[in-house]
Amino acid sequence: MSVDTIEKLFVEELKDLYSAENQITKALPNMAKAATSSDLRNAFEHHLKETEGQIQRLEQVFEILGESPKGKTCAGMKGMLEEGSEMLHETGAGKVRDEAMISAAQRVEHYEMAAYGTVRSYAQRLGKPQIVNLLEETLQEEKAADKKLTEISQEVLGQARHAA
Amino acid sequence: MSVDTIEKLFVEELKDLYSAENQITKALPNMAKAATSSDLRNAFEHHLKETEGQIQRLEQVFEILGESPKGKTCAGMKGMLEEGSEMLHETGAGKVRDEAMISAAQRVEHYEMAAYGTVRSYAQRLGKPQIVNLLEETLQEEKAADKKLTEISQEVLGQARHAA
Repeated sequence: MSVDTIEKLFVEELKDLYSAENQITKALPNMAKAATSSDLRNAFEHHLKETEGQIQRLEQVFEILGESPKGKTCAGMKGMLEEGSEMLHETGAGKVRDEAMISAAQRVEHYEMAAYGTVRSYAQRLGKPQIVNLLEETLQEEKAADKKLTEISQEVLGQARHAA
Repeated sequence: MSVDTIEKLFVEELKDLYSAENQITKALPNMAKAATSSDLRNAFEHHLKETEGQIQRLEQVFEILGESPKGKTCAGMKGMLEEGSEMLHETGAGKVRDEAMISAAQRVEHYEMAAYGTVRSYAQRLGKPQIVNLLEETLQEEKAADKKLTEISQEVLGQARHAA
């Protein structure tokens, strides 16, 4: 029973997120390359830069906590990205592939929204306002990235999608 | 390139969800058993019944489409549930384990919200109002389940969590 306090759970979940974000930075260049819509390609490229900033924020959080970010692989993100890469192989370039990538990316964003919402609330409970602010900043970026994907799907691909 | 139309993508994503929901029904009884808070145990048991209903709704959708629900494994859900089961082994019974399970369950709920949001929008685009209604019903249940988990974390476990 190595995780027996909220403090330790907090660190475990942050490590999980650190692994998730690092996996995402490896997937996004391929997704950008595979996109047909230039708006979608730009969104993936923009989100890659954003994700690099989110990794730096997590590193700041680990520094404040005096912990190492290493040592965990986020199995959830691994599965989601496998799924996304599978869909890339099953679709040809064009609108259908773009839709499939938007769908995969929105699952990733939602997963991250849940995860950042959780660690932010742990940080609040543990009385760490500086960390709350860092995590909140990223949470807002993830929400905006998700919204942007819905817009691209609606406007560029001409599909009647609604924000979930 | 087997997935070359939105219709086929729609069916692929529905199969993915069907696999995800079936995986969830296998995980929820263990989560209910591992919960210390009776509110949390009740929530998992309630969500198990709800998930069985969601599977039936998906079966209705497949029937309308004349398609089979079988043939896909949702790798994302597999990874997320692996992660959750890992946390069960790393925590002892009590508040920390309850929190860890709430966190895992909320990631699952958010993933599902994204996925149902996507297939509902495909159904709208494809002009299938009966399917839109079935998927919308489930989407609302997933949102309510997520909200309930936030409430349990706040009220029962006395933690200042906020809805993400």
